Amino acid sequence: MSAPALDCITAARTGRPLGEAAITGLIADYLDGSVPDYQLAAWLMAVACNGLAVEDTVTLTRVLAATGQQLNLRDLAPFVADKHSTGGIGDNTTLVLVPLLAAVGIPVGKLTGRSLGHHGGTVDKLESISGLHLPADAAEFTKSLAATGIGLTGQSDHLAPGDGALYALRDVTGTVDSIPLIASSIMSKKLAAGTSACVLDVKTGPGAVLTDPTATLELARLMVDIGNRAGLPTRAVISDMSQPLGHAIGNTLEVAEAVHALSGRHVPGLTDLTLALAQLIAAQAWPDHTADRIRHRLHTALADGSALAALRRWVEHLGGDVRQIDDPALLPAADVRLAVPAPASGVVHRIDGDELGRIAAELGAGRARADSPIDPAVGIQLHRRVGDPVRADEPVAELHLRTTHDQAALLQRTAAAFTVADGPATAPPLIHHTI
Amino acid sequence: MSAPALDCITAARTGRPLGEAAITGLIADYLDGSVPDYQLAAWLMAVACNGLAVEDTVTLTRVLAATGQQLNLRDLAPFVADKHSTGGIGDNTTLVLVPLLAAVGIPVGKLTGRSLGHHGGTVDKLESISGLHLPADAAEFTKSLAATGIGLTGQSDHLAPGDGALYALRDVTGTVDSIPLIASSIMSKKLAAGTSACVLDVKTGPGAVLTDPTATLELARLMVDIGNRAGLPTRAVISDMSQPLGHAIGNTLEVAEAVHALSGRHVPGLTDLTLALAQLIAAQAWPDHTADRIRHRLHTALADGSALAALRRWVEHLGGDVRQIDDPALLPAADVRLAVPAPASGVVHRIDGDELGRIAAELGAGRARADSPIDPAVGIQLHRRVGDPVRADEPVAELHLRTTHDQAALLQRTAAAFTVADGPATAPPLIHHTI
Repeated sequence: MSAPALDCITAARTGRPLGEAAITGLIADYLDGSVPDYQLAAWLMAVACNGLAVEDTVTLTRVLAATGQQLNLRDLAPFVADKHSTGGIGDNTTLVLVPLLAAVGIPVGKLTGRSLGHHGGTVDKLESISGLHLPADAAEFTKSLAATGIGLTGQSDHLAPGDGALYALRDVTGTVDSIPLIASSIMSKKLAAGTSACVLDVKTGPGAVLTDPTATLELARLMVDIGNRAGLPTRAVISDMSQPLGHAIGNTLEVAEAVHALSGRHVPGLTDLTLALAQLIAAQAWPDHTADRIRHRLHTALADGSALAALRRWVEHLGGDVRQIDDPALLPAADVRLAVPAPASGVVHRIDGDELGRIAAELGAGRARADSPIDPAVGIQLHRRVGDPVRADEPVAELHLRTTHDQAALLQRTAAAFTVADGPATAPPLIHHTI
Repeated sequence: MSAPALDCITAARTGRPLGEAAITGLIADYLDGSVPDYQLAAWLMAVACNGLAVEDTVTLTRVLAATGQQLNLRDLAPFVADKHSTGGIGDNTTLVLVPLLAAVGIPVGKLTGRSLGHHGGTVDKLESISGLHLPADAAEFTKSLAATGIGLTGQSDHLAPGDGALYALRDVTGTVDSIPLIASSIMSKKLAAGTSACVLDVKTGPGAVLTDPTATLELARLMVDIGNRAGLPTRAVISDMSQPLGHAIGNTLEVAEAVHALSGRHVPGLTDLTLALAQLIAAQAWPDHTADRIRHRLHTALADGSALAALRRWVEHLGGDVRQIDDPALLPAADVRLAVPAPASGVVHRIDGDELGRIAAELGAGRARADSPIDPAVGIQLHRRVGDPVRADEPVAELHLRTTHDQAALLQRTAAAFTVADGPATAPPLIHHTI
């Protein structure tokens, strides 16, 4: 037990700001074992109930960022961009955004996750390309960034390990869904990566990290505030997750969709979100460019094949089979494709993306546990989005699965995830806010 | 880590009632070690921040009461009363109330505390009478109750030990001052004692357990509610602690004052509070008596010497020197008495009882730590209360101290605890509420 920790707890209970020295001491004392778990648990719960002053949240984030390796990726190029998504269904934006930025000359350095639960992970999506392996160490990462403009690797345990320790305690003390704790956790890893600028894609809707739109907006604003106060220029969009992002859920299906978008074809949702995020990053890379000029450069890179070429170059550098980029039909494919008929004739009013994510994960596209294998080829291809008309004899989606799966049950659940009714339906706007 | 505990934590965070099974399981699992400290700490903080449903607070109290010995003191007589005070400065009400009730034929069975910090303890006050020892075990306690109508002993570790475990964790996690946690802690010991009825003296004012009057009222109402729902008829008064209760602070000084009050002389504050508490208990012991008839019986017991005789009989039974009751001048006395002159001529507007309590504790009347010795003879005798006029050459108080004390500094601090100013001043009413 620690008396300064007790002061911190009391301050958090009464909503009194702690100050830099107190927060720094609390976290240092926790990590060296002189503050016991039960005191930090009490502090975390007081913060979860009462919030944390912005200055204190910034300090907490800085302190967590400083608990491990500090990468300073911005030393590798004049400008290195970072991007983070809070996680969605069918969210392959990184696969499109990163080559697009590389194509226009904006290097990206990014640590990214594997799939867990029914949310996909960029690492798994990329490694579904035959032969592809992401950089295994800092040297390979630096080499990849220098050669292709893209440094991307899995999360490192050496980055903000203090956040890992805090998260483990939050996970067993009911303090995960706290805005200042989520914000400081995410931003601590962004600060530790040390890029030039960061864009955040904060999802809103069912299955998002926070389900309440007001709380989501507060989280996004706080993360932007933390980044900017801590010296990492940060922007954010709040993007819609009331339906899956594009048309694909599943690893190779999402790679194929990304190739499609990088070839300059408009993929509803995916192309629009990618351009919105790229616009925010490019505005920071090129402060003297007008918005129109930035938009023009990004559209040109998609239209003239240079964005797709950047992906091809990157895949090649990582040992991946580039023929699968040239022809996505060569990507690992599932044994069976089943058309999912519309439950009725009418207009799609709602798509339960969370349920589709769970179905895809059960097919093998996601991981139940961190050490489970995944099946790159399975998943769901959507043929309709909210607002699209459909006839009862037309498919709303296609399941990509193995012969061992229970087809009838899966077909029924997938069809039930689509609400088809009379009358027009409009999806919420893709971008709710830009911060 | 325990999944049911996590459900309890989440319920507490969102203000959802837990239900009997969940609370019972949480406390049982904590006490057997299957719920770790950090999870209970998170639950306690969520309760401290968000409160606890009344039904859940009642369940928690019952569960804590059942973690140890259950005394059923009401089996020792047709009606056995209990009384609890949340602690004040110069609060010797028990020394007057208990003999008064015994004198009118209402037995009292009560577990009571020692002094800690600047709050006195009934055990220390009684044991300042030469030769007196409180019952050391259940047999002695029962014998005392049968012989004198009074069973009174120190707190037992066997009574509600679960509350002791919870309190130890609250003490190091900033969750002491939570209304449902305070209420369940106090009432768990009252339930475990198993008396017929209970009266609570909840103090309000500076230095009280809760300083906010609204919170104090809420605490009192909740404790009364818990007692009545859990089968222990309970009443409460909220009594004023904006100044010390009577005129004495210190162990033998308070015994002498109690003898004074039991002799039928009116001690402002002390006599009034004692009668208010006695009235509430007697109304439960004698449900067919009118309030006037109860008042008459209590006043008669003070006036005709029977209340003082009950004290004398009790002290004699416990081996105490009854000559010190017959003549309190024979009680252990301090070496030095110093008159504390009024800081000015005028009317006493304020007395800082908390500061007087601290001074008395520093003189030796209180304990800094649970194992420190105390000096029974030292303390402060007050000559004025709020609203009394005083001249600059008259003493407002008298310090009873040892020759080793720094007299000048103590005189100055004691005088400074009295605010004397022009114009009339009225003390707050002694009884703020009766519940």
